[in-house]
Amino acid sequence: MKKDIVVGIDLGGTHVRAGAFDAAGDLLAMRETPIEAQRGAQAGLQRIEQLVEQVWRESGAESLAGIGIGCTGPVDVALGVINNPYTLPGWENVPIVSRLQERFSAPVTLENDADVAALGEYWRGAGQSIRRLYAVTVGTGVGTALIMDGQIYRGLNNAHPDGGHIVIDPAGPPCYCGANGCWESLCAGPAIARMARQADLSGSILLAMANGAPEQIDARLVAEAARRGDPLASAVIRRAAYYFSLGIVNVITLFVPEMIVLSGGVMRSADLFLPVLREVIARHSVMVPAAEVRIEPAQLGAYAGLYGAAYTIWSKRKSL
Amino acid sequence: MKKDIVVGIDLGGTHVRAGAFDAAGDLLAMRETPIEAQRGAQAGLQRIEQLVEQVWRESGAESLAGIGIGCTGPVDVALGVINNPYTLPGWENVPIVSRLQERFSAPVTLENDADVAALGEYWRGAGQSIRRLYAVTVGTGVGTALIMDGQIYRGLNNAHPDGGHIVIDPAGPPCYCGANGCWESLCAGPAIARMARQADLSGSILLAMANGAPEQIDARLVAEAARRGDPLASAVIRRAAYYFSLGIVNVITLFVPEMIVLSGGVMRSADLFLPVLREVIARHSVMVPAAEVRIEPAQLGAYAGLYGAAYTIWSKRKSL
Repeated sequence: MKKDIVVGIDLGGTHVRAGAFDAAGDLLAMRETPIEAQRGAQAGLQRIEQLVEQVWRESGAESLAGIGIGCTGPVDVALGVINNPYTLPGWENVPIVSRLQERFSAPVTLENDADVAALGEYWRGAGQSIRRLYAVTVGTGVGTALIMDGQIYRGLNNAHPDGGHIVIDPAGPPCYCGANGCWESLCAGPAIARMARQADLSGSILLAMANGAPEQIDARLVAEAARRGDPLASAVIRRAAYYFSLGIVNVITLFVPEMIVLSGGVMRSADLFLPVLREVIARHSVMVPAAEVRIEPAQLGAYAGLYGAAYTIWSKRKSL
Repeated sequence: MKKDIVVGIDLGGTHVRAGAFDAAGDLLAMRETPIEAQRGAQAGLQRIEQLVEQVWRESGAESLAGIGIGCTGPVDVALGVINNPYTLPGWENVPIVSRLQERFSAPVTLENDADVAALGEYWRGAGQSIRRLYAVTVGTGVGTALIMDGQIYRGLNNAHPDGGHIVIDPAGPPCYCGANGCWESLCAGPAIARMARQADLSGSILLAMANGAPEQIDARLVAEAARRGDPLASAVIRRAAYYFSLGIVNVITLFVPEMIVLSGGVMRSADLFLPVLREVIARHSVMVPAAEVRIEPAQLGAYAGLYGAAYTIWSKRKSL
């Protein structure tokens, strides 16, 4: 029986997941449940406490060494407060850290979800022992994180840099961030769906695949149609891949990391994106050794955040 | 009399400068001479050795604690070798570090010029005690550097990230870096001159200011005409300032530094750029606390590189 465990929590806009990890990074128990944000933060916090108890019990461990939380941003890392009306409606000024600390009498950390996902890949995934690990998640949005020597890079007042909103093409579509043509607005899932819906769909298999309803076209469907050889879908994917690649080139130019690890729903179609990426990088490689930057798929998939959240506690214990 | 000094060297494409600094960062003696790169690396190295001897003697110090060199890139920091056919023609594979180490029996460092200029501002200029200091130089090109806790940020194999070549507008002009519309190609001095020359100059005072020769229009002249109220020149500066600002927004989004320090010839007209910058930042400040990032002019001007080069030696001595 394991002596003690850390519970990692991945709190997203729709689901919350908890996993019990030993110090070696083995996942001993895992549970998931809808968060139902609209039922309010109190109900959500109770649900999270139940999950922690459940995976702790199932892990068979004697004691709980701590709880690490990765949460969809914005979060106030220093205060341990979630303040996220965008993706957790009603979760404004929620002091999750102090609440769980009191309940379990154990250290609790709160981090941005992109940061803990990157940290998970550093601990047990694709980026083990990589000095400068840059992580890019492409799904509903584009999230980024930099792990330097196993530590999360933070900006002023512990701000989480939000690389998904760098401007890539000022002629691009408007984004809620205030920019036109930011990275996310040009290559995330909704951008791919939008490009397809706005195109002339006659002659494309996309319309039939969406049961004749253009509004049902999403990024997954476009990727599937592209894989079946549909010219329109292929063109849309190539365009998104081009913009995705310009963003990666910018990351390489500004950070020259040893590795960029790719994750997220859209990156499940990485095979469609990588040929374009290789072309674009080759065209831009004069100023920095871009060809030496390893580009790798994430290895922990949807569990990366769980691992990284747990690591925020274990890594502190190790350094004591 | 000072016991010992460090000599900082700033080696550019046209001139080399050497300064003798005490441990407190006071500049005791300074000399400058043309580098005449085309006469070859051997002649240049002799000239540099003479400069070192001269400022050492003039400083009145007993001993030489070391020599720090900042050089126009690319330089191989780890090997101490200059390899720069672009701006120092004929200077290929020049082992300047070992040469000066043998000659003076003292430690010698070699760094990229943008990095030492930023380090100089950290030591004795605008960025003192700033945790995350980002430096942007806009002149003939756009150079960038990040100083974290007084240390130069380096990429893989000690590569110097070259932020001037991030893509800002893929519809922009081609650059030698391989990109279309990289930051440098849109707002550095040559870009400003090009935009003015390509415009319809009838009705603008620029043509008269350039003695009727459009090819004599440079960025300084455009800024001067804009300051006199010339509509064409003002429009060109506004356009360059807009692109400059998009790059700054990207830096803020990716690094969220406490301070960005601005230097370089074009930034002598910072008063024309900053109103546009403030507007653009205000429009893009949703995702990160952009309004809290301090934007400051460099304080050491053309001497920043000298200071920073000397600091590369003094900072190591202090940490012993």
